[in-house]
Amino acid sequence: MTAPRRARPSKPATIKDVARALGISISTVSRAMRGFPEVNNETRQAVLRTAEELDYQPNQVALSLVTKHTHSIGVIVPNLDYFFATAVRGIDELAIEAGYTVLTCQSNESYGREITNTQRLVNSRVDGLIVSISSATSSLDHFRRLLQREVPMVFFDRVNADLEANKVMLHNYDGAVQAVSHLIEQGCRRIAYLAGPASLSISNQRKEGYLGTLRQHGLPVSDDFIVHCEFDREHAYRATLRLLDGAERPDAIFTVSDRIAIGALLALRERGVRVPDDIALVGFNDEPVASLLTPSLSSVAQPAFEMGRIAAQLFVEQMNSDEIRPYQTVVLKPTLMVRESSLRRR
Amino acid sequence: MTAPRRARPSKPATIKDVARALGISISTVSRAMRGFPEVNNETRQAVLRTAEELDYQPNQVALSLVTKHTHSIGVIVPNLDYFFATAVRGIDELAIEAGYTVLTCQSNESYGREITNTQRLVNSRVDGLIVSISSATSSLDHFRRLLQREVPMVFFDRVNADLEANKVMLHNYDGAVQAVSHLIEQGCRRIAYLAGPASLSISNQRKEGYLGTLRQHGLPVSDDFIVHCEFDREHAYRATLRLLDGAERPDAIFTVSDRIAIGALLALRERGVRVPDDIALVGFNDEPVASLLTPSLSSVAQPAFEMGRIAAQLFVEQMNSDEIRPYQTVVLKPTLMVRESSLRRR
Repeated sequence: MTAPRRARPSKPATIKDVARALGISISTVSRAMRGFPEVNNETRQAVLRTAEELDYQPNQVALSLVTKHTHSIGVIVPNLDYFFATAVRGIDELAIEAGYTVLTCQSNESYGREITNTQRLVNSRVDGLIVSISSATSSLDHFRRLLQREVPMVFFDRVNADLEANKVMLHNYDGAVQAVSHLIEQGCRRIAYLAGPASLSISNQRKEGYLGTLRQHGLPVSDDFIVHCEFDREHAYRATLRLLDGAERPDAIFTVSDRIAIGALLALRERGVRVPDDIALVGFNDEPVASLLTPSLSSVAQPAFEMGRIAAQLFVEQMNSDEIRPYQTVVLKPTLMVRESSLRRR
Repeated sequence: MTAPRRARPSKPATIKDVARALGISISTVSRAMRGFPEVNNETRQAVLRTAEELDYQPNQVALSLVTKHTHSIGVIVPNLDYFFATAVRGIDELAIEAGYTVLTCQSNESYGREITNTQRLVNSRVDGLIVSISSATSSLDHFRRLLQREVPMVFFDRVNADLEANKVMLHNYDGAVQAVSHLIEQGCRRIAYLAGPASLSISNQRKEGYLGTLRQHGLPVSDDFIVHCEFDREHAYRATLRLLDGAERPDAIFTVSDRIAIGALLALRERGVRVPDDIALVGFNDEPVASLLTPSLSSVAQPAFEMGRIAAQLFVEQMNSDEIRPYQTVVLKPTLMVRESSLRRR
């Protein structure tokens, strides 16, 4: 909500006042002010003139759509695993500071559920949404409709390049580069990648970083060394056994998440493979468990809490802004935490 | 939502109709129909007769208050740590099966925040609430007001005996009995308890189980062996150092949570104390990390996912019921998982 302006005697004018003064519809005023081409120039001029006379501020467009602000943010996350629960805590912390309430829904990686959650939150009259997109989402129309209505939205972590909105994401490519470069420095040459589900953009961005680093160092790239699996210990365990039973055995494994690294570690332990001497291992996420494992797990840390805070910050800024501002994309830098699982004593 | 009754010609009667017909308040009708003792018998008979004449069905009470059902459940949890995130997943799973959406808020262990969350969710027209009470909550009036309006509510894990509502909880006393009995069987005699915050009911219920078991076995009970600390690794680490530096050193530590057990383990490791030979250790929650630690951590498992599912089940049953049914309290049994940290080789 905008801070009250000192010099303004009465309530700020709304889009309704402008529409009423001109005898046209609210949506025409909205389109005219945003410069949509289907509004003719004469109408646009009239709208802009009247808006100025009434001291109508464009950010009231959003206000008029939800009748009044509820000071609440709807959040949709694919699940509440460590990463997303931490990000939601970050959103919540900034929301408390800014006087907002947070309502969180899980899509459970379901496209239909994500649509239901979106509708439910909009019906709850949240002021807008902060979303991390489900891996199963095949169309973005449910989000586009809201963006067209100028509902404030911020996407984080799992974002889509086609959506014009504020975004916060990790530099996934760089995270993979750090992990794979480190493994190469440690003398590893046959580096495998335990990837997540093939549909997931973060899995593929990290794969690009993995492949790019191998190519840069002139190391062989083999499809046999890239194994996709679900995000759980059991699938990762079995995927690792497949890797170990392949024609060529890797001397390092980079995994898309710590949970997958733990599954790998269990398989390696069971087969009597020494970590890091026989096979070095690097995970991704730096969950608290990483430092407690034996051997302790090297992992690419991503600032989940900070990501949530920044997403909420962008949201609140958008809410408070009087201007229509260009959308921002904030890219956060990951940090490789080197521990025993990848540190070869040479 | 109840299926429409075939034979009923007009809108179903509401509690308001009954109250209006008798010239008494809605809350008196509500209390009379629930058989509360403060309503005299004459009034009760009149209410029941009028309700029958008007074909008023008690479950319409809730309906009348929220105008129409939204098929959504508001959830308030103190935080989104492993336990609560898992419970919310359980709530969500059953909610999906039953056609409900779940909106989750965190109270961040703040009384004021819990009140704000409650109001926000009610304003979102959720059909009711599933709540785990914050450790800082000093009055329950914000929940009582809703219960008086017959808003369906289920409390889980952190419940309060004074609230008349459906509840799902762990047998915390029994969990502590299992842990401490096991330590005694392993030959431990000076068993300390790293408790959580003193204000928390689960911390105290587990303390009662701890004390009861010591007394039952004729073992000494000492205030020096009960140390309260916050729910994090750092506080637990320092509390453990205090324990180790006390006049008498314990030969076992039972902790109120795994996170606290991990802090203890780090302190013990730093001081060169062998686990379990010098000091045996048992945690609580059985988080996934427990089995991955070195030594692996014995822990009392509580069925968090199941607890969430059952809470949602009770909620949906209450929504679907045509009758006013007595409130249920479901008490789940914990299971001690014995691992290396407490298993002495004798």
